[in-house]
Amino acid sequence: MSTTSPAGTSPAGTSPAGTSPADKAGILVEALPYIRRFWGKVVVIKYGGAALSSFQGGTTGVGVGVDRGGGTFAQDVVLMRLVGMYPVVVHGGGPQIGQVMERLGKKPEFVDGLRVTDAETLDIVRMVLVGKVNRDIVGAINVHQPLAVGMSGEDARLITASPHSPALGFVGDVDVVDPTIVRRLLAEDLIPVVASIGADAAGQAYNINADSAAGALAAALGAEKLVYLTDVEGLRRDPADSESLVRSVSVDEVEAMVEDGTVQGGMIPKAISCALAVRGGVGHAHIVDGRAAHALLLEMFTREGVGTMVSP
Amino acid sequence: MSTTSPAGTSPAGTSPAGTSPADKAGILVEALPYIRRFWGKVVVIKYGGAALSSFQGGTTGVGVGVDRGGGTFAQDVVLMRLVGMYPVVVHGGGPQIGQVMERLGKKPEFVDGLRVTDAETLDIVRMVLVGKVNRDIVGAINVHQPLAVGMSGEDARLITASPHSPALGFVGDVDVVDPTIVRRLLAEDLIPVVASIGADAAGQAYNINADSAAGALAAALGAEKLVYLTDVEGLRRDPADSESLVRSVSVDEVEAMVEDGTVQGGMIPKAISCALAVRGGVGHAHIVDGRAAHALLLEMFTREGVGTMVSP
Amino acid sequence: MSTTSPAGTSPAGTSPAGTSPADKAGILVEALPYIRRFWGKVVVIKYGGAALSSFQGGTTGVGVGVDRGGGTFAQDVVLMRLVGMYPVVVHGGGPQIGQVMERLGKKPEFVDGLRVTDAETLDIVRMVLVGKVNRDIVGAINVHQPLAVGMSGEDARLITASPHSPALGFVGDVDVVDPTIVRRLLAEDLIPVVASIGADAAGQAYNINADSAAGALAAALGAEKLVYLTDVEGLRRDPADSESLVRSVSVDEVEAMVEDGTVQGGMIPKAISCALAVRGGVGHAHIVDGRAAHALLLEMFTREGVGTMVSP
Amino acid sequence: MSTTSPAGTSPAGTSPAGTSPADKAGILVEALPYIRRFWGKVVVIKYGGAALSSFQGGTTGVGVGVDRGGGTFAQDVVLMRLVGMYPVVVHGGGPQIGQVMERLGKKPEFVDGLRVTDAETLDIVRMVLVGKVNRDIVGAINVHQPLAVGMSGEDARLITASPHSPALGFVGDVDVVDPTIVRRLLAEDLIPVVASIGADAAGQAYNINADSAAGALAAALGAEKLVYLTDVEGLRRDPADSESLVRSVSVDEVEAMVEDGTVQGGMIPKAISCALAVRGGVGHAHIVDGRAAHALLLEMFTREGVGTMVSP
Amino acid sequence: MSTTSPAGTSPAGTSPAGTSPADKAGILVEALPYIRRFWGKVVVIKYGGAALSSFQGGTTGVGVGVDRGGGTFAQDVVLMRLVGMYPVVVHGGGPQIGQVMERLGKKPEFVDGLRVTDAETLDIVRMVLVGKVNRDIVGAINVHQPLAVGMSGEDARLITASPHSPALGFVGDVDVVDPTIVRRLLAEDLIPVVASIGADAAGQAYNINADSAAGALAAALGAEKLVYLTDVEGLRRDPADSESLVRSVSVDEVEAMVEDGTVQGGMIPKAISCALAVRGGVGHAHIVDGRAAHALLLEMFTREGVGTMVSP
Amino acid sequence: MSTTSPAGTSPAGTSPAGTSPADKAGILVEALPYIRRFWGKVVVIKYGGAALSSFQGGTTGVGVGVDRGGGTFAQDVVLMRLVGMYPVVVHGGGPQIGQVMERLGKKPEFVDGLRVTDAETLDIVRMVLVGKVNRDIVGAINVHQPLAVGMSGEDARLITASPHSPALGFVGDVDVVDPTIVRRLLAEDLIPVVASIGADAAGQAYNINADSAAGALAAALGAEKLVYLTDVEGLRRDPADSESLVRSVSVDEVEAMVEDGTVQGGMIPKAISCALAVRGGVGHAHIVDGRAAHALLLEMFTREGVGTMVSP
Repeated sequence: MSTTSPAGTSPAGTSPAGTSPADKAGILVEALPYIRRFWGKVVVIKYGGAALSSFQGGTTGVGVGVDRGGGTFAQDVVLMRLVGMYPVVVHGGGPQIGQVMERLGKKPEFVDGLRVTDAETLDIVRMVLVGKVNRDIVGAINVHQPLAVGMSGEDARLITASPHSPALGFVGDVDVVDPTIVRRLLAEDLIPVVASIGADAAGQAYNINADSAAGALAAALGAEKLVYLTDVEGLRRDPADSESLVRSVSVDEVEAMVEDGTVQGGMIPKAISCALAVRGGVGHAHIVDGRAAHALLLEMFTREGVGTMVSP
Repeated sequence: MSTTSPAGTSPAGTSPAGTSPADKAGILVEALPYIRRFWGKVVVIKYGGAALSSFQGGTTGVGVGVDRGGGTFAQDVVLMRLVGMYPVVVHGGGPQIGQVMERLGKKPEFVDGLRVTDAETLDIVRMVLVGKVNRDIVGAINVHQPLAVGMSGEDARLITASPHSPALGFVGDVDVVDPTIVRRLLAEDLIPVVASIGADAAGQAYNINADSAAGALAAALGAEKLVYLTDVEGLRRDPADSESLVRSVSVDEVEAMVEDGTVQGGMIPKAISCALAVRGGVGHAHIVDGRAAHALLLEMFTREGVGTMVSP
Repeated sequence: MSTTSPAGTSPAGTSPAGTSPADKAGILVEALPYIRRFWGKVVVIKYGGAALSSFQGGTTGVGVGVDRGGGTFAQDVVLMRLVGMYPVVVHGGGPQIGQVMERLGKKPEFVDGLRVTDAETLDIVRMVLVGKVNRDIVGAINVHQPLAVGMSGEDARLITASPHSPALGFVGDVDVVDPTIVRRLLAEDLIPVVASIGADAAGQAYNINADSAAGALAAALGAEKLVYLTDVEGLRRDPADSESLVRSVSVDEVEAMVEDGTVQGGMIPKAISCALAVRGGVGHAHIVDGRAAHALLLEMFTREGVGTMVSP
Repeated sequence: MSTTSPAGTSPAGTSPAGTSPADKAGILVEALPYIRRFWGKVVVIKYGGAALSSFQGGTTGVGVGVDRGGGTFAQDVVLMRLVGMYPVVVHGGGPQIGQVMERLGKKPEFVDGLRVTDAETLDIVRMVLVGKVNRDIVGAINVHQPLAVGMSGEDARLITASPHSPALGFVGDVDVVDPTIVRRLLAEDLIPVVASIGADAAGQAYNINADSAAGALAAALGAEKLVYLTDVEGLRRDPADSESLVRSVSVDEVEAMVEDGTVQGGMIPKAISCALAVRGGVGHAHIVDGRAAHALLLEMFTREGVGTMVSP
Repeated sequence: MSTTSPAGTSPAGTSPAGTSPADKAGILVEALPYIRRFWGKVVVIKYGGAALSSFQGGTTGVGVGVDRGGGTFAQDVVLMRLVGMYPVVVHGGGPQIGQVMERLGKKPEFVDGLRVTDAETLDIVRMVLVGKVNRDIVGAINVHQPLAVGMSGEDARLITASPHSPALGFVGDVDVVDPTIVRRLLAEDLIPVVASIGADAAGQAYNINADSAAGALAAALGAEKLVYLTDVEGLRRDPADSESLVRSVSVDEVEAMVEDGTVQGGMIPKAISCALAVRGGVGHAHIVDGRAAHALLLEMFTREGVGTMVSP
Repeated sequence: MSTTSPAGTSPAGTSPAGTSPADKAGILVEALPYIRRFWGKVVVIKYGGAALSSFQGGTTGVGVGVDRGGGTFAQDVVLMRLVGMYPVVVHGGGPQIGQVMERLGKKPEFVDGLRVTDAETLDIVRMVLVGKVNRDIVGAINVHQPLAVGMSGEDARLITASPHSPALGFVGDVDVVDPTIVRRLLAEDLIPVVASIGADAAGQAYNINADSAAGALAAALGAEKLVYLTDVEGLRRDPADSESLVRSVSVDEVEAMVEDGTVQGGMIPKAISCALAVRGGVGHAHIVDGRAAHALLLEMFTREGVGTMVSP
């Protein structure tokens, strides 16, 4: 039989973390309306690239890695599932591919910012995305709850692709998404983690841009939300002014911002994918700063939100 | 298009409540293992009596009431359901019955602390419990999410009862609990709210002690937890010493505490019901101070817990 | 081993009730086409008010009651369920409310025949309808078969209501019926018994006219039949002439009879509700004399029928 | 608009059949406890042989027939299904087989009361049972409600049989009953009508005694009741004394009555099958006089019952 | 422990049938695309008449028979089911009916090629089709796998029919097909075997042309294929020229061939039923020579196919 | 309209492959009993290592490959699924790992024939197995039918592993197999393809011997068959004598053969896994020569079988 310490006179005691029980309760209660609103809804999360590399990772293997210890991303995804949402993770892995190619003495070539992908490069891309990055994300989630199942867009014809241009080799565009396999896994309460590889009808694999893959999958699933975890705070009205972060924007405005050059560089595919997804029936698309701990959780469950939200 | 206020330079901004985003995330994450552990589990909550009357209520009707505005209890129960638990609420309503009897000019009579219940008193008991207290709890929950369904132990033969003693009239003991109707409502993701009335095979209703009803229902459902929301902090090793609150106790110890007189007065039926329920297969039983806001939430989702826990 | 009495020479013997086996068989067979026609169909039955008070009841409690001994209504409803129909009972309880108010020394006030309902009156209405009348009906049914589940229009947002007029206080009109909870209970082969209370989105309860509630629920369920059990034989062509009972009438004719004053007094809301329900998709609406024993059974299962039938 | 005839002053009018509404209601209500008790229960009915030929039939075809007009049997079976029971009909057809054989100029041969069945006779037996008697029963039922499905013990390996004795040819004993197909049809709310033919593993058909087939099927299904519709009133204590009809008897007593010769002739297989079925788990077995109109209905739904009941 | 014979040096040895393992594998692989294409699809097979009589049968019973030993038809149907198709067998039995009528000394009469069917003849037709031919087909299939269930168009109102013409008596045309019972059996993975008898609403049975019954059932089921197993090779462009077999033909061409007299005699109802079925939504209709062993298997699973295919 | 070629006088024509229609039919019919026997049964197939490298592959990427053109393995697996079996593929990829390590300039180290696996090696193993070999097998199957889903033993905690020995680093032994995720995919009619990687509770991955993984998974699934596709003909009584191939052997005999040294080298883990699996409840285990085209098909569907079968 254990009795309370002398100080334990208040019903709930004092939180060791310095937050009072009342504050704790308040924050849990603040989450209530969000949990209610997103109960049973599909949320597609694009994770990877720069967000992945912001984790220190890299002490194992060929130098790519998701830090499992600090993996707040994995915790956030599991929590989303446990409170009734259906998260689907889509990832690429550009930096990790580069590292392995370097190790293999293969020089990356880019045309218009897209990686020229010959047969050998494709094999490396698949190995890194499916055999390394996908594995690390699945592993990080399953430490918390054994719910993640890794897959590639090639599985059960999830993503049918065709060549982007002859000059680029096995770089593909998404032609059709058949989300049957993803729906089946969701129906089993699992968390699909999808590497952005596609295949054509003859079984030839293609390297797909992960931003586009995430947007197309979100539209095919009729997702409630599409969230891009990136390494910027969101879209800016003035690229040079960090104070000009756009909190909320319509799909028309986003398209205008792309057209008039307000959106630049690596943000262009994300902005376009956001617009396409929302036009394709997704409820809202978000560009969120994945460098902050629990960015996903804060975006989903608190009043503040983070980054930029694109609405219909 | 809305842009951030000049101060909004951190990704998530500052919480209006004075809690930092990091703190918020931390508290949500702290809840994760509890959500995981209780996912899909049934939790029976005894609510009422003194806990009910601690709400100021009473400005409406014949003077009984659950204050809907301050009803953190209802929020807590809805949140439990939304994160995957199956709460079942059982309630009595002694003080409210007394108020109505007084209004009707009927003098309550007690034998050994139990209300003598003649036919007219029984009618009043049913009216107050089912027509007033039950309604108020159902209404308070449904404001948040339309999930609550009120019922009485008479419905679909949930609680079969028999007379406690001839001297007491229609005061009953629980003979059998057939939880079929409760399971059906849970299977539909609803929240049953059960008034502690039973009936015999001939349809005669009986007034049942709500503590006993909650314990018997928890055992019949094989509940993971049984929580008594009361107006004390929990069991004490020394009734006179508020520092001697018992945090955790085995079922054997509880029974010993009842026998040797450590547990006294109104805590006796709760302590006995806790012990019976745990012996009947319930995972843990808790005696929690329902006067604190969100006591239920803190008990379920934070490290501290509150009150006394009885373990097998 | 028991052998037949000397007189037992016919295969089935003589019925003690004076009806021959052949007559018995004939009556059971007469029911066959009706059972077939209504198999799996929903029938909403408005019960209460005057029909309730025609039972002698009243020796228990505060003086309201459904006599369980003579409760042919309960038998009829159970039989309907057992032969494949889905009965749904809706009830009010005006006279019983009046009795309790009198006991409490509260003077009923009426405006245009509607009870002015202040907060205290509403509490009394709820206590009597949900805690007394509903309980008595549920109990009477469950004596025969444990199938009845009591509920109020507040449960799981069954009936959303709004104020009828400021002068009347908490008297409400039906805005929306969401019959999900009723369908769920029917899917479990249960018999919902619904007290005519509604609530607005904020959880405020309202006293609803039971005739209107029954009609709106029947329409929302797409019921096959709506049956009003009253204390008159049916509609009359000439209110003064008991020979002028109308057996069968179209919805157009009913509306004309209301307009030209043929239908008067308490029959007006019933006649209007019948018309609205039939226009809203209900197969037929019936006004039946609930004072006759087994009126419901005779209406459903015999060639004669009773009272007035309103057809599309 | 139709109004009542002058005489129509009572709520329900006078029944044309001379039975008052009150009597009608009384008889329907008398059926209530039986409907409740047998709800969802399987009842196997052996029909055929002498009971079949008691119908005048025979004006069509080769001289065998179930009179469809007078077919109260079919009505009774449909009514049983509609009030929630699961009737299964098993039939033979001895007299009809004899008629066809005669027409074909084939002389029936019997050994110990069993028909010697060569290959040609077996073909005739199958044609008559499956192609004539089974068809007639199915057709008679489906006139009332399209629920009957004809089948033979050969279908989906329902009845596996082996030769009774070399001298008898294709006369078989029941080895195993696999009631899967019957359960599947019952699960679809259909009424299986089974001709008493079996087959061995090699597909060879056998003529099976219908009394034995019915008993074995009832035991395999765990039926609540097994009813033999025959052309006698039931078992007698003294075969010569029509006053000595046995109403109720234990399985031990039945076996004694067979042993000591009280039961004689064609009643022996029925008595033995009753005893075997009850010992095999069937609730009660009945020998009922199928010559009376609606014998089945009276047995199932009225207080009197008919014939002899064998209890465990 | 058994070791290989001296000659067993190749991994798989030599096939006793003279086919090498490689050939065996090749043929199984050839079937792969057909299995894939027809997975889960319904195939209605008209079997009987001349195809039935091409089996030597007839040593048993009254001289009709499906030779079970040589029954490649049964094997083919079972194989179709096991590889995922849903075969439904429809059959007539003209020659067998003739034999029995002769045995009974009844002279068949024909008007315009249709059998005049008085009440006695109808009884014989039913006995032979349902009691003999249907039984033999069911038995032949169940030897391989206990999946076949015999039925007639009368069961559960599968085929509603009306008289073809007064002169012909109980010869009927198909009015409506209600395939519910067939779908239920297919949903249970069973193989329905349907005798071409129908009934009107009053339960009167009619003799139906089996070719028409098969076509109407295929259309009602939305079958992928309708296959007529006949005793000719298929349709011919020139009836006199066996070299002019038509392999593939459109529904327009078939109708033209009937109109211009290219199709003659017994092929006319088959050709018309093929056209009607394809126009009614069936994928393809086939006229196949049932005299060849495993004609059905070769048609379904090999590149060659056999007979004539009618396409939309 | 197409007519037959002049030679087309036989019903089915001549097969272009030189096999007569009758032979084709015969081979399909030969498969019938095997299809029947294995309908709905799980078959685990260990594929990879040497069997993988017998395909010429290797012109793409880093030099590893499954030749998709010649991939009879993929066809066989799809055919198994289509005829009702549930194939599960488990694979390793030793040679492919070696090739990649060589490319990366990493020198493989072996202790007792097991690869010493440091963190970097483990990353390479995962990349090659999951990102290359698994992808190639999934792709080859999905060309035929989109049914394959790649996964690793890490997914949804399929294989929990622990270190084999400190000296070997991340080489793991199978502790527990939780086949839930595999069963879920099978229930969706998919074909799981599992890379032999496991993980401990903390999420640390381990390299697992694929032979052991296949055996443990087969036992956990209660598989009907476990098939090792290797590059030898099977077990030999005398390792030096190719004539001494053992066709059939009991589990006791296999264990004796391992003990007395008859089984040697790489066959030891296969022989032990076969024995363990059969002792663990698997119906039969097979060691089959995967170098022969369609070895799997011949083993499953023809009389001859190939290689060695281990029986309980």
